[in-house]
Amino acid sequence: MKKEINIGLFGFGSVGRGLYDVLGAVEGKDVKIKRICVRDLTKERGVDANFTDNAEDIFTDPEINMIVELIDDAEAAYGIVRRSLEQKLPVVSGNKKMLAYHLPELIELGKQTATPFLYDASACGSIPVIRNLEEYYDNDLLVSVKGILNGSSNFVLSKIFNENMDYASALKLAQDLGFAESDPSLDFDGWDSLFKLVILTIHAFGIYVAPEKIFRYGISTMNDADIRFAAEKQRRIKLVGHVEKLADGGVYLWVAPQLISRDKYIYSVEDEFNGVVIKGRYYYKQFMFGRGAGGHPTGAAVLSDITACRYDYRYEYKRMNTSLPLHHTNDVTHRIYYRYRTEEDSTLIHFSKVRERYTSSEWSYMVGDVTLAELVAIKDKLAGKDIFLAAYPFD
Amino acid sequence: MKKEINIGLFGFGSVGRGLYDVLGAVEGKDVKIKRICVRDLTKERGVDANFTDNAEDIFTDPEINMIVELIDDAEAAYGIVRRSLEQKLPVVSGNKKMLAYHLPELIELGKQTATPFLYDASACGSIPVIRNLEEYYDNDLLVSVKGILNGSSNFVLSKIFNENMDYASALKLAQDLGFAESDPSLDFDGWDSLFKLVILTIHAFGIYVAPEKIFRYGISTMNDADIRFAAEKQRRIKLVGHVEKLADGGVYLWVAPQLISRDKYIYSVEDEFNGVVIKGRYYYKQFMFGRGAGGHPTGAAVLSDITACRYDYRYEYKRMNTSLPLHHTNDVTHRIYYRYRTEEDSTLIHFSKVRERYTSSEWSYMVGDVTLAELVAIKDKLAGKDIFLAAYPFD
Repeated sequence: MKKEINIGLFGFGSVGRGLYDVLGAVEGKDVKIKRICVRDLTKERGVDANFTDNAEDIFTDPEINMIVELIDDAEAAYGIVRRSLEQKLPVVSGNKKMLAYHLPELIELGKQTATPFLYDASACGSIPVIRNLEEYYDNDLLVSVKGILNGSSNFVLSKIFNENMDYASALKLAQDLGFAESDPSLDFDGWDSLFKLVILTIHAFGIYVAPEKIFRYGISTMNDADIRFAAEKQRRIKLVGHVEKLADGGVYLWVAPQLISRDKYIYSVEDEFNGVVIKGRYYYKQFMFGRGAGGHPTGAAVLSDITACRYDYRYEYKRMNTSLPLHHTNDVTHRIYYRYRTEEDSTLIHFSKVRERYTSSEWSYMVGDVTLAELVAIKDKLAGKDIFLAAYPFD
Repeated sequence: MKKEINIGLFGFGSVGRGLYDVLGAVEGKDVKIKRICVRDLTKERGVDANFTDNAEDIFTDPEINMIVELIDDAEAAYGIVRRSLEQKLPVVSGNKKMLAYHLPELIELGKQTATPFLYDASACGSIPVIRNLEEYYDNDLLVSVKGILNGSSNFVLSKIFNENMDYASALKLAQDLGFAESDPSLDFDGWDSLFKLVILTIHAFGIYVAPEKIFRYGISTMNDADIRFAAEKQRRIKLVGHVEKLADGGVYLWVAPQLISRDKYIYSVEDEFNGVVIKGRYYYKQFMFGRGAGGHPTGAAVLSDITACRYDYRYEYKRMNTSLPLHHTNDVTHRIYYRYRTEEDSTLIHFSKVRERYTSSEWSYMVGDVTLAELVAIKDKLAGKDIFLAAYPFD
């Protein structure tokens, strides 16, 4: 069962390098990186490894018996995973964007070719959320998965709420420390959290919901008024990914800032950490917490996937094959805090019930109940405006 | 791969009943409890199920294809698991005492008979610690596993430290709420934590250490002076199970009260909850948190084992088969708080370095460095004395 592994690695950014370091620290040398494919061969890498810029060198090497894909470019990553599966080469991927768009097709291809295909490191770095949903919370007792899925935005929010930093300085610090992606929109507009949520939803509830169907709102328009509002209510703003099953078999999911009260587990998830609360009937709540980003923690998570692949472990996707499949819905009502500036902007959103209203010449807000379907309907209109919204849960 | 499961269940206490309830809530009826073996058939159970007091009724029923053992009596549990494996019947066990004493032999028997044998629910109830050690932290990056493994003692400590209850009232409350075992020594003298630690150590580091070789100290001699000492140092006393790998391949483990500072994850684990910190090179720290006791959470955990069994999942015990096996050691030094009354009791322990010393007519204490080997050597002498000791870590 245990075999020698010769890895063909694509990408040598922070995670690729992390994996390289981690593998160097593991005793016994049954797992080796045989060849590394990078875009720019001239770049100084500071390690003594066998680089190439030609994918063919990897795919035609008969000794390479596992592909690990850790590149940024989602379309290229898709091509690599497809080809690996077609060649029946076990493959580990870390590209959440690619997975969020192509998972159903790749799962099918993995089945057809009977080839292991793992990607635990793609969601929440070193926290084994996918594996636990897949292996442990795989019965229909599971109710919800909710958490801080993006370390960079959480780092910025922590600096703002704990150290009174302003948004711009906190963002700069995150970038200087290497936590933030070069395109801040991925982290701060909630895309990264959204991709992870799509992946988790497949394993939690057995349904695939395309990213464009899901309400996603980030923190880039958050301002001092919002921070003051949260502080007055003794809450912190956190960027939360949330998927939940309703009693009728509907499943809703969204990514949005949430005003989190002090008694919640995720209130205390600080800095670049991730934290996920898994809730089930009879289980009550489980909380898992750890480093969600960074080359070494994520590299170590990739190693866990490699080891599992080596033991021919596969995701079973048990929830996708149940007799009573679940369905996606936006028919659920949430309490929302909605801050705006102009009278016109106040008419963009239709609350089924307004609970609080504050207006001044500088800023105004409403607190009220709104359906997720309404939020999906108006989300394009919110873009680019001096508006901020956040879930304001009752509990 | 998926087959209908007819369970022969042994035991219908809190967890057995929990499993019964949980199974009733699961959609699809591919998993059924066919027969339940109990000691006392005359006892009113309040459910409409097929009871027997004769184990033969279960072991000779050709339709029963899985055994679930949830009884209190460790020796009887051992007999049930042995017989199940000998009959090649997949078996799920929840008896940590039995496992802590018989695991090596049962693992071997499970291998010989190629029969699935799972017991995730035995350690930390609903937190999937064993499964994660087995599946995810299975490479040699793992450094330590440390946590609150017993919910009842933690409940009592919480009431004492947060609500200023005295020990006796807190214990009574725990018993009234059904958290404490009928024999309080199991919870409060650290036996329960010890058994779980032995099980976790097999999966974490691949070595079996018999319970009697491990230093174990509980909280039953803790008094107001100890509580005041902890409060003055801004720490809380928690009963902690801890196993850690040293750089030389030695592994030490112990169960003892620890003075935990505010910045540690387990400081905030309250009431009947369990919390485990898994530390690794490159992973840094992972924290898992959930309900460690109670019929329903543990019943749900048993269901996860049943489902895994049904998919022919087995623990691989990868760490037991490494080329560089680890070894048990007590050769490690800890800082200890040692409270005593008489001058004679102060001579029982030999510190390599005394760091603090306080004496009064009412109570006295020393803080100093001591090896785990010394603690093992003196532990029998401490029994029954008005002495309390706790780890007092520097960090």
